[in-house]
Amino acid sequence: MADVVVLTPNPAVDVTYRVDEQRIGETQRVRAVERRPGGKGINVVRVLRTLGVDALALAPLGGAAGAWITDALADLGIPARAVPIAADTRTTVTVVDDLAHPTMLGEPGPLLADAEWEALADATATAVAGARVLVVSGSLPVGADPARVGAWVRIAREAGVRTVVDGSGPALLTAADAGAEVLKPNREELLAATGAASEPEGAAELRRRGARLVVVSHGADGLRAYGDGEPVHVPTVAGVTGNPTGAGDAATAGLVAALLRDDDLATALRTAAAAGAAAVLRPVAGEVDPTDVRRFLADLDPAPGDPDAR
Amino acid sequence: MADVVVLTPNPAVDVTYRVDEQRIGETQRVRAVERRPGGKGINVVRVLRTLGVDALALAPLGGAAGAWITDALADLGIPARAVPIAADTRTTVTVVDDLAHPTMLGEPGPLLADAEWEALADATATAVAGARVLVVSGSLPVGADPARVGAWVRIAREAGVRTVVDGSGPALLTAADAGAEVLKPNREELLAATGAASEPEGAAELRRRGARLVVVSHGADGLRAYGDGEPVHVPTVAGVTGNPTGAGDAATAGLVAALLRDDDLATALRTAAAAGAAAVLRPVAGEVDPTDVRRFLADLDPAPGDPDAR
Repeated sequence: MADVVVLTPNPAVDVTYRVDEQRIGETQRVRAVERRPGGKGINVVRVLRTLGVDALALAPLGGAAGAWITDALADLGIPARAVPIAADTRTTVTVVDDLAHPTMLGEPGPLLADAEWEALADATATAVAGARVLVVSGSLPVGADPARVGAWVRIAREAGVRTVVDGSGPALLTAADAGAEVLKPNREELLAATGAASEPEGAAELRRRGARLVVVSHGADGLRAYGDGEPVHVPTVAGVTGNPTGAGDAATAGLVAALLRDDDLATALRTAAAAGAAAVLRPVAGEVDPTDVRRFLADLDPAPGDPDAR
Repeated sequence: MADVVVLTPNPAVDVTYRVDEQRIGETQRVRAVERRPGGKGINVVRVLRTLGVDALALAPLGGAAGAWITDALADLGIPARAVPIAADTRTTVTVVDDLAHPTMLGEPGPLLADAEWEALADATATAVAGARVLVVSGSLPVGADPARVGAWVRIAREAGVRTVVDGSGPALLTAADAGAEVLKPNREELLAATGAASEPEGAAELRRRGARLVVVSHGADGLRAYGDGEPVHVPTVAGVTGNPTGAGDAATAGLVAALLRDDDLATALRTAAAAGAAAVLRPVAGEVDPTDVRRFLADLDPAPGDPDAR
């Protein structure tokens, strides 16, 4: 029984290939291979656990790639509940060199049978019983019904469990319709999903549909939250450079950790920003050093003092 | 107990990604994914079985990729003996579109422990007992001792089993030193491995070391064999276009099938050329239509007639 259940609808084996020089139309020897369990929710659960939160990974997993993820999560000490599916879990391949931007090749993800979607909903109901927060994070497999996300939110709400959804497109709308407590799109996702002309209008639309709080990430420009009062903005930590992959997922984890502590909204946003900045310092998505998170939280605190004393 | 044992030292999961347009430094959605068990020897064993030869695949296999290959071979109805290894079997990723040449990204392959190499040698000894031919096909994992190939040849010879080696580099030399019956490099591999200035000199060097027959493939220009008599040349089948990947492996399979029938050398080379041409007609490596092989063999026959009547 975990405090936080993180549902990753479309997990992935994230593979990174280092080559001497990316070239199209040639045979290239891969100099180094890294494989890690991926998908946004998997990054979220890893950071949550690093922050000391009792979090469980829940995901549909199939084929050799699914088995690999199960093994890798076990090796990382991350409790996981796999819902078995017949199709192969997807792989993403990122090709890197020291010369050009990385090239990312993303498989669309498996087709799940209706019975498998139902098994995932049942597993969600079982996992959230006794939990405090359900996080749904990342894309659905191509072709999946976006109403699934709304259904998961309803399952959690009926169990009295808080909900945080980091998604995009119609899934964001179904989560709002189902009364998700927190939605966390980035600015582009918000405008695309709602068709709104501005960020405040988009956030208002999601709240009108039923969401309580809309936290919009602006990448390097910080986070802005739209709730019952005035919008609240926190900047990112200044001067942090590194690998932004997974920073948004770390921010989601920071936000959830703060929600569990019943922090006020501004503190929760600062915790999210601090966790995101800490993730930028790490070469791999899904990792933060808690010392960095505490340090950056202090940096962001408008009233200097020990953040742990709050 | 199979007639032919095909040892693949460095098998692979061969993945093909179709994208709209290959681009460096961007995120690309993969439109279609194909996975098949690969490595040259896996192609050879698949074609051998299609040609009606009782052949067994033998390979070191590890991790999720190794388990996937084991399952895939079973699905294809190919008897296989896997020697378990701790490291992950490699994957190759080929990216294709309709605009540019394919891009191939090849992992170097797993590092095997000495005990795993010994287990592979033991499994080879067990598998060749009662077999008629051992085929060793394809690269060694990066960092492997090329003397392993010579050792496998010796194991087969001590069991009275014929040997065919399709390899390159120092492994080709160790196979020759061990007295392999047939070596099948391409022209570039022959010159690189022997350092010879010409193909006849390179073939003579391999024969001086101990090989009985050196069959040199020239791709679209056919095959030339260097044995006890004058060199024998057969052309490729004219006018065949398609996918050349795996054509050399199909040629190896054709050659082995002819050896098992004790065909004369010219007929064996023609069978190899016919199988290679038949493979070009198939979109996927490791496949031939036996009807195509028979038809092409008739086309290549200098004395027209029913090739089956020979």
